[in-house]
Amino acid sequence: MKVTLSALNTHESSFTPLVVIELAQDVKEETKEWLKNRIISRKKDGGAQLLFRPLLNKYEKETLENQNLYLVGASRIRLLLGAEAVGLVKECSDNTMRAFMYGTRHNFKGFDDDNDDFLTMAERQFIIKHELESLRARDEKMIPGYPQAKLYPGKSLLRRLLTSGIVIQVFPLHDNEALKKLEDTWYTRFTLKYQPIDSIRGYFGETIALYFGFLEYFTFALVPVAVLGLPYYLFVWENYDKYVVFASFNLIWSTVILEVWKRGCASMTYRWGTLVMKRQFEEPRPGYHGVLGINAVTGREEPLYPSYKRQLRIYLVSLPFVCLCLYFSLFVMMIYFDMEAWALDLHENSRSEWTSILLYVPSIIYAIVIEIMNRLYRYAAEFLTSWENHRLESAYQNHLILKVLVFNFLNCFASLFYIAFVLRDMKLLRQGTFDDYLELFLQFGYVSLFSCVYPLAAAFAVLNNLTEVNSDALKMCRVFKRPFSEPSASIGVWQLAFETMSVISVVTNCALIGMSPQVNALFPESKADLILIVVAVEHALLALKFILAFAIPDKPRHIQMKLARLEFESLEALKQQQMKHVAENLKEDWREGGKEEAPSPRGAPHARTHAAQPCSGAAAAQPGTWANRQLPGLPSR
Amino acid sequence: MKVTLSALNTHESSFTPLVVIELAQDVKEETKEWLKNRIISRKKDGGAQLLFRPLLNKYEKETLENQNLYLVGASRIRLLLGAEAVGLVKECSDNTMRAFMYGTRHNFKGFDDDNDDFLTMAERQFIIKHELESLRARDEKMIPGYPQAKLYPGKSLLRRLLTSGIVIQVFPLHDNEALKKLEDTWYTRFTLKYQPIDSIRGYFGETIALYFGFLEYFTFALVPVAVLGLPYYLFVWENYDKYVVFASFNLIWSTVILEVWKRGCASMTYRWGTLVMKRQFEEPRPGYHGVLGINAVTGREEPLYPSYKRQLRIYLVSLPFVCLCLYFSLFVMMIYFDMEAWALDLHENSRSEWTSILLYVPSIIYAIVIEIMNRLYRYAAEFLTSWENHRLESAYQNHLILKVLVFNFLNCFASLFYIAFVLRDMKLLRQGTFDDYLELFLQFGYVSLFSCVYPLAAAFAVLNNLTEVNSDALKMCRVFKRPFSEPSASIGVWQLAFETMSVISVVTNCALIGMSPQVNALFPESKADLILIVVAVEHALLALKFILAFAIPDKPRHIQMKLARLEFESLEALKQQQMKHVAENLKEDWREGGKEEAPSPRGAPHARTHAAQPCSGAAAAQPGTWANRQLPGLPSR
Repeated sequence: MKVTLSALNTHESSFTPLVVIELAQDVKEETKEWLKNRIISRKKDGGAQLLFRPLLNKYEKETLENQNLYLVGASRIRLLLGAEAVGLVKECSDNTMRAFMYGTRHNFKGFDDDNDDFLTMAERQFIIKHELESLRARDEKMIPGYPQAKLYPGKSLLRRLLTSGIVIQVFPLHDNEALKKLEDTWYTRFTLKYQPIDSIRGYFGETIALYFGFLEYFTFALVPVAVLGLPYYLFVWENYDKYVVFASFNLIWSTVILEVWKRGCASMTYRWGTLVMKRQFEEPRPGYHGVLGINAVTGREEPLYPSYKRQLRIYLVSLPFVCLCLYFSLFVMMIYFDMEAWALDLHENSRSEWTSILLYVPSIIYAIVIEIMNRLYRYAAEFLTSWENHRLESAYQNHLILKVLVFNFLNCFASLFYIAFVLRDMKLLRQGTFDDYLELFLQFGYVSLFSCVYPLAAAFAVLNNLTEVNSDALKMCRVFKRPFSEPSASIGVWQLAFETMSVISVVTNCALIGMSPQVNALFPESKADLILIVVAVEHALLALKFILAFAIPDKPRHIQMKLARLEFESLEALKQQQMKHVAENLKEDWREGGKEEAPSPRGAPHARTHAAQPCSGAAAAQPGTWANRQLPGLPSR
Repeated sequence: MKVTLSALNTHESSFTPLVVIELAQDVKEETKEWLKNRIISRKKDGGAQLLFRPLLNKYEKETLENQNLYLVGASRIRLLLGAEAVGLVKECSDNTMRAFMYGTRHNFKGFDDDNDDFLTMAERQFIIKHELESLRARDEKMIPGYPQAKLYPGKSLLRRLLTSGIVIQVFPLHDNEALKKLEDTWYTRFTLKYQPIDSIRGYFGETIALYFGFLEYFTFALVPVAVLGLPYYLFVWENYDKYVVFASFNLIWSTVILEVWKRGCASMTYRWGTLVMKRQFEEPRPGYHGVLGINAVTGREEPLYPSYKRQLRIYLVSLPFVCLCLYFSLFVMMIYFDMEAWALDLHENSRSEWTSILLYVPSIIYAIVIEIMNRLYRYAAEFLTSWENHRLESAYQNHLILKVLVFNFLNCFASLFYIAFVLRDMKLLRQGTFDDYLELFLQFGYVSLFSCVYPLAAAFAVLNNLTEVNSDALKMCRVFKRPFSEPSASIGVWQLAFETMSVISVVTNCALIGMSPQVNALFPESKADLILIVVAVEHALLALKFILAFAIPDKPRHIQMKLARLEFESLEALKQQQMKHVAENLKEDWREGGKEEAPSPRGAPHARTHAAQPCSGAAAAQPGTWANRQLPGLPSR
């Protein structure tokens, strides 16, 4: 049920700008007029009903000749109606989390008709972005002025404008005052303190806040491992028992911290409303295309694309492509090791200065090749994921991340695995590159995969992350373009990636312990017995890990209860809605003379008659209707 | 919102009996009168409002002197209202699955005021059972006539009557005509045909129908394994490659059939309504006790028991107890093997007739001890699970099954593991004991765990199951007391058990292949290399298994869509309910003189005024309200 808001004035010349649209320098006036028109015109006319004006030069009060920067904003009411349309969830006065509705706005905590703080800046910008993205072609066959930029009914205008180069970019504005305030509490002080996660969420949205939340959590979680690893490094402990203790601790640690994060994350995103927000009921992401039809779930008109076609694209194209790339990457790695062996051989035979320089050549070539492969692969992964045509932004992101992740994992760790298990050169392994989660993921890999060999990894990771928090915060506030907020309820596929990594780490750590000379010395006569014992221990640890992950609930009990309460209330509301419909239908039958009135069933002859009475309040109607069914029956004995 | 039905006449002397209550022989008249009273009196007076009469002797038309069998039934309307109370889900005329409500009864497919077939017999009996179980003590301190049978507010009367021996049993009646019809389509013909799962569900309920459904599915699923196993047995194929093929096939087979069952089960239970039925919102099971309070989810008054106390009982008492029993069971097994070795030793030394009889003694003693231990353990498991105080019948069942399962698994397979991996006696392993799912589970274990060594296991399992279907059906219809139906959406914890078994089977099959002399012959010089290769293959197969289980969705897409549609509609209904509440509140404010009317926000000055208008139809109200918000604004350009 889409809201039509023909009432809002979208011609105000002064408003709080939220989002900037940058057009190409040579865009035709015709196109600009058309775009402006679509942005400000009413919803029912296919517009977004937003506010729109050119960015004025600081010194001149007039619009520039070749104006290509435009500001987009919205009136307060428009934003609130937009919040309802995107399905934002806010806390009610009775402490429940409810989908925001303009009609029930006074039920929500912190709402005041004169107060602008009800929606965070990140939410307001997200709403504008959503409204701009929801602008879809109607009867236009092309973008006016650009016959080559074809349109068809349902095509996202913004996406076509971007792909045809008419719109260069769309980005949210910074708010200098708010940013200064955020910075003051975030990273300017060098004292160790918790990050202002809620303020970060207010300014940058949930996705960024979850990243910093995870970074902080992960850093704290690493401390025990770092502390436990220090004595292993300092005293060069190398006995078998102590390593088994370290590896067992690592295993339980990695399982428990990931489970505890899930619970903490659920508590946090419940408070933010994103856990309850049903993003799958939203409109599709702008890149999604298909034949215009009716969504079977929401009943809204939107492009439809059959899921089996997507599955075919994933399993028959993307998956083989990724496998091929992984194979190629391993192939390159083997060439590198061969080249290195050849260079070393050459150097040992001639021992000239020329050959000692040659020693570095394989590493340099390999590093350059890896970098080129990484870039090509990322480009291909983005193309393929986009081509897979996912309906939800989260599904798109998850599939993209998964592709990039697997490739990066292989590139980062394959050589380490090769060194550890084929070359068995522990010294080489102990020497020890990293965007955002990927960096943390690889770090988690370094800390957990080879913790036995390199117990200091966690300590360095903690030190790295402490500076990482500040540098990432600085980059976020000062270096990068402000990103649009993306409401999210969890770290998505990253959770899976970290969990998979922690499973792999059990295997590697057990293998490393089994390969250590100390342990080998315990089984001088039979290597087979040693391997069998290591494998048995590894299976027991893996079983323990799965039982632990299964036994710890993913959501704290109070969150489970609140979600169950919401589900119960929704289903009850649905029942009452149906009751109302029946009552209304009967009312109409009644008006038509009650001709379809069947003989009343025994026991409650007036039941239908009563149900047929008009009930003005659905919520209060049901018990009322039942109560009406009382008959002057016999006393019960 | 509980329905009060003071209108129903509960004094009819002739009715269709559904359930029998058997009292003890010497129950006082006072108690009988009280019980009858509670069963027939009105809901608002704390009764169940059912129909109740003594069972009449066939020849005499009068009640017997020492009557101890009573029949319970209910009027048609009472049953329909009970169906609403238990939350039965039925199909509507628009093909959606909806919680049945008496008020909306005409919306449901197959409903007719003159037709008794709308509720299956199993459902009617389940409703009666539910209503009898929901009879809870109010101000009674004890059961009248039995001062030792204490009651407290909220205590289930039926449970106290059963525990104090006043009620011997409560059971559903058979319907000879319907039973005959069911039998005719089920098991009397010896042709191979699909079982009438929907008819079984109609007569016995979902739990029984799912068992037979699973038995049938599992038998069909075994056929390929049986066929593939035959040549291995007949031609005594023993080469390495062929065993690897068989083991790999087994692995993919066991993973895929379990995933496919989940999907088929979801389709079936969606059709039956139990997949959508929210049993967690029901009243607690009769055995559940606690302090009377308000359920935070449903808002109903019921006994409450803190979940942390339950967790403590599970982890600090039940879990250690189970572990101890498992340890004891292993200990007994070791004694058995020692005894057997001693008897064999004795026999080989003396070779007398006396010692050859002695050879059977350890097995006989072990079988008797195992049987005694099994019975004691099952009694203890039931006591502990009951003491854990689970709120839902399904949680109780799952915890009980898990306890029994682990113990049975150990008792059945520990000796096989010992024979296979410690004694390494493959001949002994190849000789090859089976209630219902447990039997299938153990069968699945035999088929999958040691399939490499005994390829004929699947073929025998298929033959066994083909007769099993008929004998189980006969037992169900003719031998056992008819069980109460228990609506269920899946086979519960059994799914987990089968999945765990299939993981274990990967490990055992790999180990068995690795131990085979043929494979050992391939690595004459290094046993360590052989073990490493087997472990690597095993890890790759396990990884494949987890990826496969992850990649196959648990519910078919059309079921996912329908569930999403239900969730979407529920949430929309909740929104509209809230809108209605706001509208009603405003209406009241309005009547009080509109004194709290705040200045209207710019842009939509009349918004609240309009929202405050009485809206008679919540469903149609929202768009209406929005539409009302139109202002004679400026044209959009």
